[in-house]
Formats: sequence, structure tokens, C-alpha cells
Amino acid sequence: MRYRSHSGVWMVMAMWVAGAGSAGRARGDEGMWLFNDLPKAALRERHGFEPTDEWAKHVMLASVRFNSGGSASFVSPQGLVLTNHHVGADTLQKVSTAERNIYRDGFYARTPEEEIAAPDLELNQLVSIEDVTERVTGAVPAGASPSEAFAARRAVMDRIESESLQATGLRSDVVTLYGGGRYHLYRYRKYTDVRLVFAPEAATGFFGGDADNFEYPRYCLDICLFRAYENGKPANTEHHLAWSADGAGDGELIFVSGNPGRTRRIYTVAALKHQRDVRFPLTLDFLRRREILLQQYGLGGGEFERQARDDLFGVQNSRKAYVGMLGGLQNPATFVAKEAAEKDLRARVDSDAALKKHADAWTRVEEIQARRTQAARESASFNSRLYGIAETIAQLVVEDRKPSSQRLREFRDSARASLEQDLYSPAPIHGELEKTLLADSIGLFIERRGGDHPLVAAVLQGKGPEERASELIGKTKLGDIEARRALVKSGPDGVARSDDPLIQLARSMNDEYRRLRTIQDELNELETQAYAAISECLFAAHGTGTYPDATFTLRLAFGTVKGYTENGQAVAPWTTLGGAFEHEARHQAKDPWLLPKSWHEAKDQIKADTPYNFVCTADIIGGNSGSPVLNRQGEFVGIIFDGNIQSLTADYYYSDEVSRAVAVHSSAIRETLRAVYHADRIVEEIGGAAKPAESK
Amino acid sequence: MRYRSHSGVWMVMAMWVAGAGSAGRARGDEGMWLFNDLPKAALRERHGFEPTDEWAKHVMLASVRFNSGGSASFVSPQGLVLTNHHVGADTLQKVSTAERNIYRDGFYARTPEEEIAAPDLELNQLVSIEDVTERVTGAVPAGASPSEAFAARRAVMDRIESESLQATGLRSDVVTLYGGGRYHLYRYRKYTDVRLVFAPEAATGFFGGDADNFEYPRYCLDICLFRAYENGKPANTEHHLAWSADGAGDGELIFVSGNPGRTRRIYTVAALKHQRDVRFPLTLDFLRRREILLQQYGLGGGEFERQARDDLFGVQNSRKAYVGMLGGLQNPATFVAKEAAEKDLRARVDSDAALKKHADAWTRVEEIQARRTQAARESASFNSRLYGIAETIAQLVVEDRKPSSQRLREFRDSARASLEQDLYSPAPIHGELEKTLLADSIGLFIERRGGDHPLVAAVLQGKGPEERASELIGKTKLGDIEARRALVKSGPDGVARSDDPLIQLARSMNDEYRRLRTIQDELNELETQAYAAISECLFAAHGTGTYPDATFTLRLAFGTVKGYTENGQAVAPWTTLGGAFEHEARHQAKDPWLLPKSWHEAKDQIKADTPYNFVCTADIIGGNSGSPVLNRQGEFVGIIFDGNIQSLTADYYYSDEVSRAVAVHSSAIRETLRAVYHADRIVEEIGGAAKPAESK
Repeated sequence: MRYRSHSGVWMVMAMWVAGAGSAGRARGDEGMWLFNDLPKAALRERHGFEPTDEWAKHVMLASVRFNSGGSASFVSPQGLVLTNHHVGADTLQKVSTAERNIYRDGFYARTPEEEIAAPDLELNQLVSIEDVTERVTGAVPAGASPSEAFAARRAVMDRIESESLQATGLRSDVVTLYGGGRYHLYRYRKYTDVRLVFAPEAATGFFGGDADNFEYPRYCLDICLFRAYENGKPANTEHHLAWSADGAGDGELIFVSGNPGRTRRIYTVAALKHQRDVRFPLTLDFLRRREILLQQYGLGGGEFERQARDDLFGVQNSRKAYVGMLGGLQNPATFVAKEAAEKDLRARVDSDAALKKHADAWTRVEEIQARRTQAARESASFNSRLYGIAETIAQLVVEDRKPSSQRLREFRDSARASLEQDLYSPAPIHGELEKTLLADSIGLFIERRGGDHPLVAAVLQGKGPEERASELIGKTKLGDIEARRALVKSGPDGVARSDDPLIQLARSMNDEYRRLRTIQDELNELETQAYAAISECLFAAHGTGTYPDATFTLRLAFGTVKGYTENGQAVAPWTTLGGAFEHEARHQAKDPWLLPKSWHEAKDQIKADTPYNFVCTADIIGGNSGSPVLNRQGEFVGIIFDGNIQSLTADYYYSDEVSRAVAVHSSAIRETLRAVYHADRIVEEIGGAAKPAESK
Repeated sequence: MRYRSHSGVWMVMAMWVAGAGSAGRARGDEGMWLFNDLPKAALRERHGFEPTDEWAKHVMLASVRFNSGGSASFVSPQGLVLTNHHVGADTLQKVSTAERNIYRDGFYARTPEEEIAAPDLELNQLVSIEDVTERVTGAVPAGASPSEAFAARRAVMDRIESESLQATGLRSDVVTLYGGGRYHLYRYRKYTDVRLVFAPEAATGFFGGDADNFEYPRYCLDICLFRAYENGKPANTEHHLAWSADGAGDGELIFVSGNPGRTRRIYTVAALKHQRDVRFPLTLDFLRRREILLQQYGLGGGEFERQARDDLFGVQNSRKAYVGMLGGLQNPATFVAKEAAEKDLRARVDSDAALKKHADAWTRVEEIQARRTQAARESASFNSRLYGIAETIAQLVVEDRKPSSQRLREFRDSARASLEQDLYSPAPIHGELEKTLLADSIGLFIERRGGDHPLVAAVLQGKGPEERASELIGKTKLGDIEARRALVKSGPDGVARSDDPLIQLARSMNDEYRRLRTIQDELNELETQAYAAISECLFAAHGTGTYPDATFTLRLAFGTVKGYTENGQAVAPWTTLGGAFEHEARHQAKDPWLLPKSWHEAKDQIKADTPYNFVCTADIIGGNSGSPVLNRQGEFVGIIFDGNIQSLTADYYYSDEVSRAVAVHSSAIRETLRAVYHADRIVEEIGGAAKPAESK
């Protein structure tokens, strides 16, 4: 599955990365296009269709971002939001208890009153995009050092965001595009009162489990329905997607509107080799370690298994994705085209008087990689929810004494509401799981620093990792939300006096945390400057027929519904609901290929030939999970939930030969809501009030 | 479970290690004692029992080593050998097929004719020990360089072994003890015609699976019966263990006779820190990687799952053991006593005119660790059975042109028969599994060397790891035993001309393989010299009341049957057969806590209060799996199969406070053979013909 891109696990990896940009001119159906720079000419030429501005605006306003990492869309005028089961899974876990396992057993609110409030979801609806490149780059004085440039850019971005927030009341983010070549201001309407309406059982939402993940053919009802509320009432969502009567046909043009999390297509050869030789292997070691840890925790059975389940699936998903990404980079063939293109571009730059000043950008990127290698195994943090809270509080009270423009970026005023929603989330925290994660994380810290490092002694206080973690988690008060608020309120002096052991630990890590942060910020700044230069060269070489690397902001991809060939066999673009039962039988109905009771009971009522999952050539990546698939009328025809195994190299390379995005068909959703789940009020809600979008 | 110590997985790790030695005077029931240097005085003082020479000789001759890695004993005069299910598992897998899963379903040969020949087992019965220290150390000229010393020592060891083999016809191994402080010649009777007699279902042999492994209380029938044959007839094994009528009682003195694989108790503080900071973390990353890989392979279901099963359990077992070992070393408390003892000994050495020459041994060990760190991530081999065969053949034909005494040690004449049994083993090799393992191993090689290393290009030949592995395994002829023989026969020229792609790959790795081997040999030699010096200091300080570190040779441990306290709760030393059903019910009879059908059918016939598993304080480690537990009469009272979780630090530290060895009780074996498996001829065979041993 294309996992939500900003889950806890991803964040560990994501910390790492500066922005990126486009690799050159898009080919075929390649591209994750900006809504304010759609490839209208290419669409007209390739597919005989040109979206109007109204069409684009409607799709943009009907698209929804799960700020926790994932995509979605409004599918009714009453705020109904459709996303993937695996995007909603984090919330499904949080609203589950030992007694009521909503994640496993599913949920349907028969009445509006039964809809369950999510503890800490934030949904974003993009309402406008403004190019602020000149103001951002103009704020950096000529001849500024990297740290001066970084500070100046951070300050102007904060000013732009704060002004916008004040003027409009909208969430306002300056987004770095093309690795620093462009800066756009994105304004979002936020929804923080979000309630669960419907989820199927995990057994069908994630049918086939880790084994079928990233494979095709597939049979997953990977969907989940929420509702956005405003002022205690269902939000009025005039812009929403009408449900297509039949969905898309084979070979039909489709669009995907969603928030791809990250790609690395602008990366230079040196930067990709750094991923291959340093970053991906380290990430994989970490993921495998975490996977085994969570498996072992789950062996305790019952409640232990339940607590570990969602994280485990996320980790397995990332591990499988990274194995594919690394395998691709380890294939020498991958570098052949990349090296040739880079050589061409550099030759052109060398011979162009206007671009020559950018000629050393590639060397600069290479030097940055060497420094990244040095820093790659250093960290000053620990992996546990409660430790993360302690770290946030310890940093927050110090940062808040500075003007917003000078703070670490995550503590700026304009992002405060989102930060607080997370910091004061009432989502359950599991003590035993926290102990397990923290003990392992302390162990990893010792491995990476060496047991004789002075910080190790400070962390352990003479105890072994397990014993120390037990003590820290056992004695902290940070499980209590009011205790968190009180600490924040007490300010730096109060936090300094706190006897909470996790707060004390976070404070003792502070110098090292700041030291590493400064290194990362400087490397990111240097990389931003180098990629901005490379982007200028690309614009000069390829004009505007290009798109920036993914940045977990709204993009439009397009393609066609289309099968492919694997090991000489044709793979059909469609599966059917009836096929799910056959797939179950092929695996002796053994977990994870056991359909839930509800499906078996409804088998006779389900139209077996209803299209279920399908593939298309649209250019997607993690973060696109939950993206609506649309036809040219702007109608909803499906929802993205995965890519096939061949698509894993999309991180750095798009191909429509065998790479495919995988979606749940709109008809299968309506059919199962009707026949299996008897969710009549929902069927009525999505079926009625269709508002056709314009197109020409 | 205390896994067999020389399985494929272990060998990967074991390559690493030089010998070791004892850490000082043994305390309490500590010690893995040499049969020619038993702690008679300590036994008399602590337990009022002194074994006679006859007693010791009888026990030694009744003990059996599984050369594949594990321990066992003769339990009848007709060559019947009792070991663990998990020691026999490798053979159970090899004699299983897609149609007949003996590993999973168990086996019982109702008649001698039904006994199944193991494809490549070698059992060793130790018949004599001779101290050859003077001859070995005398062969190294004063002032020899490390490589000269290494060559001289290798040559004299080979001569001693070859002479002994020629004179006696017995397998003859010179064993390095006390990390180089002593050299003993061990002579073994070999059994290579070994047949499977009985194995229970894996569901009871490994009841509780990875979750219960290294835990206590336990309920495992972790046993397996083979028979040694000579000249096509059951071997005449006059020395065998009589079955105790009732087994051992609480608090009773017991002995464990077996082959502990490796301990690190002589290791200096610097060497242990190297394990903590470099070696164990690398090993764990490797094990987790392999564990996930085998799990993923098994997700294919059916035959895939079967092929991966035994390796997977072995890897999980090692991973769990290393996690415990590393956790112990990461606890600062572990080093307190070790550092104090080392400081004392060094002070004594500094102030002793005769020992002063050894004063720099600790610094030398420390310097060696730094060099080991440098070399730790380098390898010139790949993890696949077929590649291993190619590598062996490529080296063998070159080595065989040298005199035996100058060859790499594994190619010496005196070890040839064992090497050939392995090289020409008809055990099945699974092509798809080979591809998976080799692809991953090539991937790891790239990670460790960096993708731009020239050897990487030579390995990949322009293809990705998966594609290349598929090609190599798909095209090699080494699956055919006759092809292997023909290549060996064709000599270096024939091998050089071979178009077998795996042979070509092994040949292209040769220079690097030799380079690394030379580094390892030199480091091992330097370490041997340093530990020999440290051993001399220990002998001077503590006299002979000490024992050498484990070397996968026969040792005698002793202790008492004794419970312990965990989290304030008393843990009883015994479980019962009836308790197994209760343990099953506590886990809802879900895999791996589902007892086999045979047990459920026989439930009413089983005496529920029969003692099943028990714990004792004997000092054991991996390789002791299958060791008989004896009472002072030398009667069989149980069989070791595991240690509890607290015992994992036994690698470098013995304690009898809460560390325990875990065994299957003799009465449970007889009772289940009778009531569940109706293995009447076996019950009769072990029950009759008891030959009581003498004791005083």
C-alpha cells in the first residue's frame, strides 16, 4: 500500500531530506503537476482533453489532505470524506480499546449521532496558491553565509506565513519547490473536528496483508469514511466529487488528485548513490529492527498484538518499499540514463555564458553527501511517543522566548495550532509498548555512539537499557495531558526544575540535539542552494514543461486504465468482487486471506462481476494513498491505495511500461456498502446530489 | 532453545572468532570442565561426590557430538542416539519432501528397516584426549613474525593430526584451549551412517515457538532419536546411558555432558566492548535481515514455507540470543566486576618478575579490536548453499597442490573425509530459496562495499542483484553431485576453464577472499598469542581451578535441580505433561501453542503428573543442545534443550542466581513414547539393558 507519508515511522526518515525538484522534461504520462501549472498542452496533445480553470479549481477544492499523512476527497455536500482504510488506521487504532477493536472489526455509524470524534486529526483543503519566490529569494542578502542565508530565508517564510494567517485566518505554508527553485504560499482551510463514519474490517481493508502488499492482482476494500464538522455541524462542502455511474473503462483517461509525499527525481547521481550506499541501507536496518521488535511485542497476544498491529503494518510497508527502491538503485542499469542526462546538462551549462555560474552545483551536492555520510549514524532523540512529547516541551519553552521568525521552524506561530493538536492529543499511549520502544531506541543509541560515549552514561544512569526505559516510562507524568499543559505553562524555569525523568532526559540531550540540528539545517541550506541552481539550468534547458519533486502538497497526475505484462503473462487491469472469494480459496482461507464474516454472509447478495481493484499509469508515490481517481468529467471513479512492485522505483524514476498505480473501483465501494454493510444512509448520501463538473 | 552451534547461520558468525579461555577461578557451579581435568575437589567439597576415572570414561564414551552442531548421547547398546528435535531439525528438513513433511509431522520407524538414512550427518564419539601443548608451542621459533608463527603452528597441528589419523584411523583434531594457552589432541570415532528412528511433531518439539523460546516454564518434547550404524548394522555401543527409573529430584546433584560451542569469558574488557559496539550489532543487523527475508519467502505458503522453516527458527533463535547478550553488555553493571578483576590481575602481573613479560597482552588485545573494527564489514563470500559449494571447489583444487601442512586449515588431509561428506551431500537444495538468499547476499555485499566498488561491477555484470542471482542459480550445474566431483577431479586447470557461472564468480572473488583470510588469520594469531599470555597469568594467579572457554568439544558441567525467583514470584523447577494442555488452553490453542492431534487423542492415556521440563544450575551454552543430564550414578535423567532468558549472558558471565539450563525430563520422554507415540520397540530398547555405572 502507498502508506500515508507522514506517519511516525516516515517522520524518522523524512527528517533527513531537503527538498528536491524535477529531473527534466516529463515523458509520457509522467508527472505530479502543480495545480497552478497544469500540463494543459500535453494533455490536449496526448489525450485530446484540456481541463478548464473551473474544472481544476473544483477538483482542488474537492481534494483533502490528511495532515497525518495521506490524501482524500469530499464525496458529499455534507462533509463526507473518503480515504483509505490504511490512512484512517492510525485513528481507527486510537478510537479502539481492549474491549472494542474498531481497527480489526470495522465500524458503521448508523446515525449521525454515532459518528466517533477522532482524537487528533487535521484535514486540509487547499484553497489558494501564490508564487512568493521573489520575496523569499530577495530576502537573502548577496554574499550571505549558509547560516545567514538559512536564517534570512526562515525569517521571511515565517513573516509571509504569519501575515497570511492573520489576514485570512487560513493555515498558510510556504512550500519549497524544485529543491529551492520556487517558493509558493499554500493556504488551507483546516478541519479539526473530524468524525469516523465507516470503516470495513481490517481483514478486507488489508486483505492479503504484507504478502499481497505492493502486488497485483489485488482484492482490497481499502477505504474509510470520515466526516468534517464545522461548529458542531457537518461541514458544508459545496465542492465535492460526484460518484460516477459506472466508473472508468479500460483505456480511459483518468486523473489522480492527491498529495505525493516525496520523490527524488531531481537528485544528482552523487545524491542517488548516497541513498544507495548510506541512507537506504541504514533506513532498512532500522525498519527491520523495528519490524522484529513489534512482532515480538505482538507475540504477547491479545492486547499486545492489537497495540502493535498498525505500527507493524506501516513498518512492513515501508520495509517492502525500501527494499524495492534500494534494489533498483543497486541495478547499474538505473544509472545509465541518469548519468547520461546529467552529463548532457552539465555540458550545456558549461557552454552557456548565462548558466556557467551554476556549473559547480553538482560538485557541491556531492560534497554535501560526504558530510551527510559522516552524520548519518548520529541522532539525539529516542523513539517513543512519551519521549517525543518531552522533547517537544523541552524545546518549545526555550523557542517561545524568541520571535517567531527566529525559532526552529516547527515552533513558528503560524504552525502552533497544529503542533498543539498533536502535543495535547488524548489518543491512548500504551505503557508497555512505550517501554519496549524506548529500551530498543536506547540500545540503538548505544550501538551508534559506542558504549563508552559520555552521553550514553548520561542516558543510562548506571542501568541497562531495559531497566532504564522501564524506570523512565514508569515514572513520567507526561501521559497526563494536563501535566503537559502545566509544564509548557511553567516556561523554561519550570521545565528546568521539573523532576519528570523524561523531561530531564530530554534536557540532558539538548546540547547534542541542537548541535545535530545545526548541522542538518546547514546541509539542507547548502543543498537547497545547489538544487535551486540546478533547477535554473533545467528550466533553461526544458522550459516549463516540467514539475517539481513531491512535497506532500496537492498535485494532479494523469494516465490511463491499462494492464501490463509480467513474466510473459498479461495482467488484466481489473479484478472483481467475485474474484476476492476465489483469491481467498486459493490461499485456503488462511489469515491474511480470510475474508470477514460479513462478506461470507452477504456473498449471495454481492454482484460478483462488479469491478473491484484496477490499475492505471498515473504517476504516484507514498502520500497519494486515498487520492481520488477522476474521469474527465471530474467524477469519482476510484481511490488510489497502492502501487505494484514494479512501481517502487518511482521515487527516482517514472516508467509506464509495467509500473502501475492500484485503486479501488467506485462501483465496488458502492456495491459493498450496499450489499455487505447495509450502510444505506451513506449509499444514499454519495449516490444523490451529484454535481457534475464542467469540462470542454 | 540452545541451538546447534555449527549450523550455517552460526558459521557466518563463527568465522570471526579466535579461541578464548577462562576468566579466572570458577565460582559456585560455574564451569565447562575438560574431561581430563575435572574439578574433583570442588565436587567433593560442594556436593560430597567425586567421580571416578571409570565414571568419567563411561560418560565420555556415552556422549555423542553432532558434527553439524549439537550434542547427544547413546541410550542403548544398539547405537540408539538421543538428541534434541531442533538439533535433528536440519536432517528432518533434508529427509522431508513437498509430499512428506517429516519435520512438521514427525516420524517413527516401526521396524529397523523403516529407519531413514540421514544424507550428511557425522556423529563423533570422543575416545581420547592428549596434551600436545609442548609440541605445538615448541614448533614456533623464537622471534617468529605473526605470519611465520601462524604457519608454523598450522603445520605442526596438521602433522600431529595426520600422524594420529594414520596411526589410529580416528578423526584427530588439535584443539586450541585457553585461547592458546593449551593444545590438546582429541580423537573421535566417527559415525557417518546415521538413520532417523523417531521425531515428534514440530508442534510439540518446538511448542510455543519463538515466543516461548528462552522462556520458562516450558512444555517442549524437544527430542529426536537416531541410530548409528557400522558396516550396515546398528553400532555396538557398550558405553551408553542407562535410563533412570525416576529421574532427578529437586535439589539433586546433576551433570551435563556435552559440547558447548563458544563462550567469551576470558575476553578482556576491550574485547567485550568490541563485541558490544561492533560485532554484536552487526550480527544482529544481519540476523534481522535474514529473519525478514525468510519470513517473506515463507509468505509464498506451502512448499515455500516448508523450505524456509528450519532456517527461520534457527535465525530467530540466534537473534533472540544476541539481543539478550547485547543487552547484558550494554548494562554498565556488567563491566564493573570484569574491570575490577582485570585491574587486579594486571596489577599482579606488573609486580611479578616472572609474569611481567606478559604485561602488554591486554594492550595487544585492544589493538587487535581496532583492526577487527576496520575489517568488520568486509566479506568476500555470498550466502547460498550452491555458492558455498562453488567457493569450496575453487579453493580446494588450488590448496590440494600444496602439502597438507601448508593448506588453509579446512583443506588438510585429516579433515578431508568430513569435508567431502558435506561437499557431496545429496541433501536437497531449493532453487528459489537459493535465488532469494543469493540476491539478498549480493545486495548486502553492495551495501557494505558501496555500489562503485570494482568488485561490485564484477559480481553484477551489469544486472541488478535479483536478476543476477536468478541467472547464476538458474545456470549453475552444481546442484548435481557428479558435476561437483568432476570439477574437483579436473583440478585447477579444469576449474579455470569451467563455464559454470558460480564457479566463475567464486574464482573472481578469490584474490579478495585470500586477502581477507590473511588478515583474519593474522588477527587470530595475534589474539592467540595475547590470550596465551593472559592464560599463563591466570594459571599463575588461580592455579588449575579453572576451565577453558567453550570450543565445541566435550565438557562436563554440574549443578543442582533448582527453581528461582522472577519479578518476586517463585518459579518452580518442574512442569508436568498435564501442564502442557493447560499452557495450550491459556493461549487459546493458537499456533504455536497448538498441541498435535496425537497428544489430544492420547490425553487420557498420559499420566498428567509426569515431570516434563525442568531447570538446573549447570553451566551451559549453545552447542549443549541435546546434552544428556545425568545423576551421580551416571544414569540418564534428562536432556538439555534451552536456557532461560536470564542465562543469555552466560556467553561472558556465569551466575546461578536466576540463570538456568532447561531440560526435558527422562520420565516425560518414556511416557510420551509409550502413551502418545506407541513406540514400543524404542521404549523396550531404552528401558532394558541398563548398565549401571560405578561411582564412589
